[in-house]
Order: sequence, then structure tokens, then C-alpha cells
Amino acid sequence: MSSVIREGDDVLVVIDDKRRFVAKARRGGVLGTDKGVVRLDDVVGKPYGSTVETSLGARALVFKPLPHDYALLASRVTQIIYPKDAGLMIYLSGVKPGSRIGEAGVGSGALTIALASIIGETGILYGFDISEKSLENTRINLEKTGLLNRVRLQKHDVREPVKLPHALNAFFLDIPDPWNAVNTIAELLEPGGTLLAYIPTVNQVEKTVITLREHGGFADIHTYETLLREYKVEKNAVRPFTRMIGHTGYIVFARKLAQQ
Amino acid sequence: MSSVIREGDDVLVVIDDKRRFVAKARRGGVLGTDKGVVRLDDVVGKPYGSTVETSLGARALVFKPLPHDYALLASRVTQIIYPKDAGLMIYLSGVKPGSRIGEAGVGSGALTIALASIIGETGILYGFDISEKSLENTRINLEKTGLLNRVRLQKHDVREPVKLPHALNAFFLDIPDPWNAVNTIAELLEPGGTLLAYIPTVNQVEKTVITLREHGGFADIHTYETLLREYKVEKNAVRPFTRMIGHTGYIVFARKLAQQ
Amino acid sequence: MSSVIREGDDVLVVIDDKRRFVAKARRGGVLGTDKGVVRLDDVVGKPYGSTVETSLGARALVFKPLPHDYALLASRVTQIIYPKDAGLMIYLSGVKPGSRIGEAGVGSGALTIALASIIGETGILYGFDISEKSLENTRINLEKTGLLNRVRLQKHDVREPVKLPHALNAFFLDIPDPWNAVNTIAELLEPGGTLLAYIPTVNQVEKTVITLREHGGFADIHTYETLLREYKVEKNAVRPFTRMIGHTGYIVFARKLAQQ
Amino acid sequence: MSSVIREGDDVLVVIDDKRRFVAKARRGGVLGTDKGVVRLDDVVGKPYGSTVETSLGARALVFKPLPHDYALLASRVTQIIYPKDAGLMIYLSGVKPGSRIGEAGVGSGALTIALASIIGETGILYGFDISEKSLENTRINLEKTGLLNRVRLQKHDVREPVKLPHALNAFFLDIPDPWNAVNTIAELLEPGGTLLAYIPTVNQVEKTVITLREHGGFADIHTYETLLREYKVEKNAVRPFTRMIGHTGYIVFARKLAQQ
Repeated sequence: MSSVIREGDDVLVVIDDKRRFVAKARRGGVLGTDKGVVRLDDVVGKPYGSTVETSLGARALVFKPLPHDYALLASRVTQIIYPKDAGLMIYLSGVKPGSRIGEAGVGSGALTIALASIIGETGILYGFDISEKSLENTRINLEKTGLLNRVRLQKHDVREPVKLPHALNAFFLDIPDPWNAVNTIAELLEPGGTLLAYIPTVNQVEKTVITLREHGGFADIHTYETLLREYKVEKNAVRPFTRMIGHTGYIVFARKLAQQ
Repeated sequence: MSSVIREGDDVLVVIDDKRRFVAKARRGGVLGTDKGVVRLDDVVGKPYGSTVETSLGARALVFKPLPHDYALLASRVTQIIYPKDAGLMIYLSGVKPGSRIGEAGVGSGALTIALASIIGETGILYGFDISEKSLENTRINLEKTGLLNRVRLQKHDVREPVKLPHALNAFFLDIPDPWNAVNTIAELLEPGGTLLAYIPTVNQVEKTVITLREHGGFADIHTYETLLREYKVEKNAVRPFTRMIGHTGYIVFARKLAQQ
Repeated sequence: MSSVIREGDDVLVVIDDKRRFVAKARRGGVLGTDKGVVRLDDVVGKPYGSTVETSLGARALVFKPLPHDYALLASRVTQIIYPKDAGLMIYLSGVKPGSRIGEAGVGSGALTIALASIIGETGILYGFDISEKSLENTRINLEKTGLLNRVRLQKHDVREPVKLPHALNAFFLDIPDPWNAVNTIAELLEPGGTLLAYIPTVNQVEKTVITLREHGGFADIHTYETLLREYKVEKNAVRPFTRMIGHTGYIVFARKLAQQ
Repeated sequence: MSSVIREGDDVLVVIDDKRRFVAKARRGGVLGTDKGVVRLDDVVGKPYGSTVETSLGARALVFKPLPHDYALLASRVTQIIYPKDAGLMIYLSGVKPGSRIGEAGVGSGALTIALASIIGETGILYGFDISEKSLENTRINLEKTGLLNRVRLQKHDVREPVKLPHALNAFFLDIPDPWNAVNTIAELLEPGGTLLAYIPTVNQVEKTVITLREHGGFADIHTYETLLREYKVEKNAVRPFTRMIGHTGYIVFARKLAQQ
């Protein structure tokens, strides 16, 4: 893990809270912004955490992108799982180096990157989606981050059964009708394995939780919602920001029972 | 990773949401609860995710404990970092297999366990505390979970400098006066490294953020607060639980700049 | 409005946040608490806002009870509409001196007292309930507060039509199946009149809102949820209280259209 | 209170949630919107709650404005007290027909209108501000709503003492340094009278609460924060709106003690 930016590395360029970009550091490259152009020439050879100037004199910071930086950038093009939710879901799942996990659908790959990062070289992630375009976007994002070798992407509808060479430790579910995937996931999870579903409406939560209960193969079922507030901190003037995200999705957690 | 419970394994015993215990599976052992006794004899040799009966006929589920199970149990004896916060902090930190990280203070070790789990065999965690008792509790909890070999526990006050053999990727800070540890942590973090501070009051947040800004070695500083609601899901009757945790701590995030 | 406590007045006695009582000031009366006995003899003749001592030496403040003081006290015996919700509902309703309003069910009368206070001597409130006991409790609470003359309590199920001598400006609804009262309320409200329903579960909200839309006689329909946090303010240590109420009820607002 | 719109009446015109206007109903008047022109000719003589068509065929509803309608419209030009906060503050204050109350500063008069509405013909409101422009805007808004005769507007800085002909039941405070007005308000309030301060930052809350405590003339001091979520209710798809207001102001409540 070099701390010097090399030709071809992804870099996170931060001008301010609203101007954050991931770009490739390469000779001759430029990043155009309304605060001026960042010459990507300039960043190669510098340590991560360096400051460069835009053509209009603005200060731009250059960092190595973390998984959540990719997530926030993906949010501009598609519905994503927000950091406040991704963080809790990953933590509750118990995923760690070596974990074997499933994910459906992969969307733009924002959660896929975070999961692939945590399972390490010895883990494996099976990523399912019914959209070729989502799979392709995810493949591109994984390649950029050097994580593609840990992930098996597969065009498959998880409402239908699928065979895998081993039981899974955790499954992340983000599809419109999660209740229809409960049978498939029950077959894939090891006893004690965790299910984490990300669900936009209360009605979908209700159907999913009731299906999990009636299936009988799951227990310790919980439904959560997280709210994140950011604070504006100035000397003698601390207050939350005026606007916030009021809703993203609900999180349903369950553990797989052993068959008895 | 065997899926059968062996003599000496830690097990999570779940009777209901208010009756959750971590116990050691061993011949002759018993776990006493107000819903009856669980014979730990009975669980050895069963797969994780099994159901046993208490002496009073209640149903008890037996799972392999996940890091967040240890966290919730620790909360009964000491102030802990809640899952809603631990999940977000770990996600924002970018910690992954192989990461070199610092933590001060370690408290009861709830966050330490989660971090040690994610860094894998190739990572290393330096855990600092000024309390012998906290260090000892953390050591015991790490030993129980088989993670002690990844952690160097050290009695040290991080308001004073400390030398480590390599730069750190991330530092987790949970002490009463985080602003006094900013210099130490600035020395320890690699450029681009992340600082995550967990802070109970607004006044401590203000001092910490202003110290980080004035220090000059940090950027991309953000202050967050998370709220977690759990839902009661019954057919045709979905609603949040009546009571919730209204406050735990604020989270301050920052990235280390390269020296220029 | 005398500022001196007279024999027979209701008084609010505040020892601390958990010890708040409404009692009648009268010769020979006593109020027993775990912090000692308050002699109600002592308070007669003192100004409101005075301090007295309990038999165990604790300081007790004596105030004239406000409508929300009655609400909080009622909360110990029955499900009530919390101040955070009552305040918003009353404000959104546009109720003012002289308003003619309806309420069903009246429950323990906590909201009834607040509404009767605001409509003044020239207003009138029609309070419906199917429970004799609720009507009787409400009658007693209104009598104590001197507001009974503004209220007509009536045993009636508002899912069935009812005739009133004039159209209403606002209707407050707190029954298990509000959607079944939509027809009745549509008949009672004047054009532009407001409906405020207080509803515990999301499923009841859904049915109510859809019934209001399909009925056709309502518009400007909105569904709200309020959260209230209280802060612990100490010098250099400001933070929200650790525990809070996570859910009370949802509020549905609608305005009656003119018939066309 | 006629239910038919007369020449010169204020009307609330609602096209959708983002297109809400208060206009004067008068012969020859027009209201221009991006959804077409509303001829104010058309609305005179119709009952409140009627529907008219814009020149582009959109449906526009015409209601009698409620106090909170004026508040939301004021929010476009100035910082206002939101309904979620105004509702709670008014409710906690105990204000009712006949109340004698104070307010400083009056801002654009949004809260002033709501308070003047509730105190009725027999109440009186003393409104203070140091800005001529705020006083003038408030005067205009009160005139439009027919409430000016209940309000005495006065250019005065409430950090300085002021004499009034009688003690006040409640005081509403919305100035940058509320702690500097504590002495003035303590002189104005009757024993048991309520103080409601609306405060943007935590630091101002801290100073205000500590000043109230040290003054000694106040008790039952509480600090609140409200959050309001609106829900999108569709059949089988209920969820909160994606965006919400994350912060407006904190509310400090206190009761005046009798002098002893």
C-alpha cells in the first residue's frame, strides 16, 4: 500500500463538500470543475493527502478513495445504499476477512465494493442481478478498485433457486420484492448466517418480515431505520445543517436457523 | 469455520429480545435465566442456529456470536459505542484486511473486537488506555474471541506522544478530551489516514473540530449524529417501538493531510 | 385571573422532572410523595410560582396548571396525545376563540382540555366517545378545569352519522379505524374545515389517507410524524437525554372541499 | 364567519404542495403562476373550499388562510418559526383567549399572527423589535388578517427594561442573544408565567439556560428540539419523503417563580 500516487491510480479530489470527484491520475489528464481545472499530471508522484491548486486558484485535496467515497459518487447516477445504512448492515452481518457472501441486486456496485474490500483475498462474494447494465457497471467499478477477483457476478433472478459450491455466511438483499427471495436465500445461508435486506417502503417491510416468520427457517428478526444528521461546527455556533436526508430505506435483519 | 458447536466455543443464546447471553459451551455448564436453565451440555455437537429448550420449556436459539453481539452485551457494564455508531465509524474509516489501526481508549473492548475482526490476520491494532482494568477486560474479551494475536494493548495516555513501527491507516478515539490527542494522532496517521472520534457532548465536539482545523494537518472534517429506530412489525400493524435511544455520541471524521 | 392560590384551586406541584402532580389546594389536604409530604394548607393564599418545603425538606414549586400539565398527568393512566403532537395538531387546525369543533374519541380528555381552553367562552366543542368511562373521566377533568360549559359530551359512535346544529370548523379524530368515520366527518365540516387524525400504525394511516382521497370531499392531505428530543444542559456539557420517546402516533391533516 | 368568499378577503390558493399562495380576492385581480393564471374575479362569491381552473387548465383550490398558511408563506422571505415549533411553543405556553403576552422580535409576524388569533378580542399582545422594517411587515400582515387591534407593536430593544400596564402570562423570545433579555422578561412575567425562547445554536441554548438558572427567578426549565417528517402515502407504498428539514431551532421553556 504505497502512500505515493502512481500513474493509473484512482484519486479522490475534494474541493469542498459539494465538489468531490473520483478521477484517474494520469499524465495529460485533466478534471474540469466550476472551480477550475485540476491537472492530473500534477498529482502523480505526490503523496496521498496532498494539496494542489486548480486553474482558478482553488485548493483541491487529493486522497486515496475509500469504499464510502465510491458510494457517494455512485449516488449521483442511481439509488444507492447510503453510508449510514451500509455501515450498519455490514456491521450487523458479521462479515469479515474470508467470509463467503451473496448480494442481490448489485445495483451500481457501491455496496459490492465495500463488501469486497472487507472479505479480503480469501473471501468470495456472489453478486446477482437481473440487469446486464447493473452487472456491467459493477464489474467496471470493481475492476477500477482492484477487487474484481473476489467477486463472481452472475445474471440471475434470486427469486429462482441457485446452486453455489458452499453455504454462505451472509446475504445482502436489495430487490423490489425481497419476500420472493426468502426461499432461495434460506437454501444458500449456513445455520447462523445473516440476512440483511434494504427496503424502501413500510409495506415491503411488512411482507418481508411476515414471509421470514412464516418460512420458519429464520429467527432474531429485527427491522431498523437510521437517520443521519450532519452538524455545522463554528466557534460558538454549533447546530445541525438545515437540510437532511429524511428517508433512504429500512433494514431488515434475520439469522438462519439450523434445520431440525 | 465449523458450523457445529464444539466444547469451549462461545455461543450466543437468544430467548427473546431482552434475554440474550454469551456463554461458553461446555460439559456440565449451565446458563441460568428467569425463563429457566439452559444446559450447555445440550448445545455441544449441535449446529449453530439450533434450538434448545430451557428447564421451564422456553425456546432458546443458539448462534455463533457476531462482533455486534459482544458489543450489546458489553453495554450492560459500561458505556459502549452502539452498533449504529460503530457500523458507521468502521465504514467511514475504510478499515479492511491488513489495515494498521489505533484505538484509544479501548473501554470494554466492544469496538476493539469489531475492528480486530475486520483487519484479519495480516492487520494490526494498537489499543491504548490509561486504565489497567479496561485493558484487562479488553484482553479477556479478545482472548475469548480468538482475536488477541492481532492486537497490541498498551497502557498509554494518547495525549502524550507515542512511537509506532509504522504509520497508521486509521485511528479511533473515545476519550473525554479528544482535542488533547490531536497532535499525537497527527504524528501516527499516514497521509490520507482517517480519524474517527466518538464524543458525548456538543461542547467536546466544538473543541475537537476547532483543534483539528487549527492544527492544519487535517481536512474533510465532518461531524455526524445517528439515530436508530426499531420497528414493531405485525400484520396490518407496523409502527416504530415506543421507546428509543435518543442520544449516544457524536462522530467526528477527518482525513490526515500530507505534510507540505 | 387571580395570581393568588385560593381554596379549591387545582395546583401543579413540581419537585423534579419525575415528580409532578396536580392536586387541589384545600385546608387540611396533603400530597404524599417519596420526597416527603406537601401540606396543601401551606399553599392557599400564596402566589402561583411559590416554593414550599416537603416534610423531608425537599423544595416543591407550586404553579397554576397549564393544559399540557393535565396532558402529561393523564399519560400515566391511558394512551394520550403527547404535547409534541397536540401542539402541532391544534396549530394546523386553525382553531381559535369562537371555533366550533368536534372530537372523537375523547379518551381521558387531555386534548379536550387544550381545545376547550383555546375556543374560549364563545366556542363549542362536541366530544364523542363510545365508552361511558372515557366520557365520565373527561367530564370530571373538564369540571376540574372549569371548562365543562364549552363542551357537549355525547355517547356516539362517529362511524355512524350524527346531526349537529351548525357546521364545524375542525374535527379531531383518535379512533382505531378513522377511515370508517370519514363520511360522518365530511357531513359535519364546513367547506375549508380541517380534519386532524392521530393514528398509531402505518397501515391505519394508509387506509385513512386512501379513503380521504377516494371520498373526494377532502384535499390538501398531508401525513406527518414528529419526534421530540429533550436536552440536558450543563455548563460545557450539552447533549440530548439518553432516552426518548421513539413513537407516539402519525398525524393526518386534510381540508374539506366545498360541494360542487 | 361567512363561508362565502367576499371582495377583499385573503384567500389561500393551492395548486399543489409547491404552489401555495395567499392573494386578495377582488374584481379584476389575477394571480400569475407557472401553471397558469388564476382569475380572482372567479373566486368572489364562491364558498371557501371551492375549486377553480387556471388559464392552463390546472385545478386550483381556494381556502380561507389559517395562521399556519401565513407562516409558510412568510418563510420565503425570512427566517421563520416553523409550524412544528410554533405549535409546540404555543401549546406549552398555555396561551388562551384573554391572555396578555409579549413577543420579541416579531420578525415577519408569522408567530404574531398565530398568537393574536388565539388570544381573541379580549387578549393583548405586546410585540417588540429593533427593526422598523420588521415592525412594518408585521403591522401589514396583522392588518391583512384583521388582528391588528389586539397587538401593540413597539420599537424597543428588550435587552433594556420596559414598563407595561400589567403582568404578562407568557413571553415569546426570538432574538440572537436571549440571555441578555432575561432580566427584562423576569420583570414582565406574572408568577407562573411562561417563557418560550426559539434559539438556533447549541451555544446560545447553553448561555440562555445557564442565565435563567443563575437569575434564580425561573424554574421548570426545559430544552427541546422537534423533528418533523412528512410521509408519501400511496397504496402499498408508504414511506417518508426523501428530504426533510434537519434543523430549525431549539426551544427553551421556563416558568417564572413568585418573588420570595
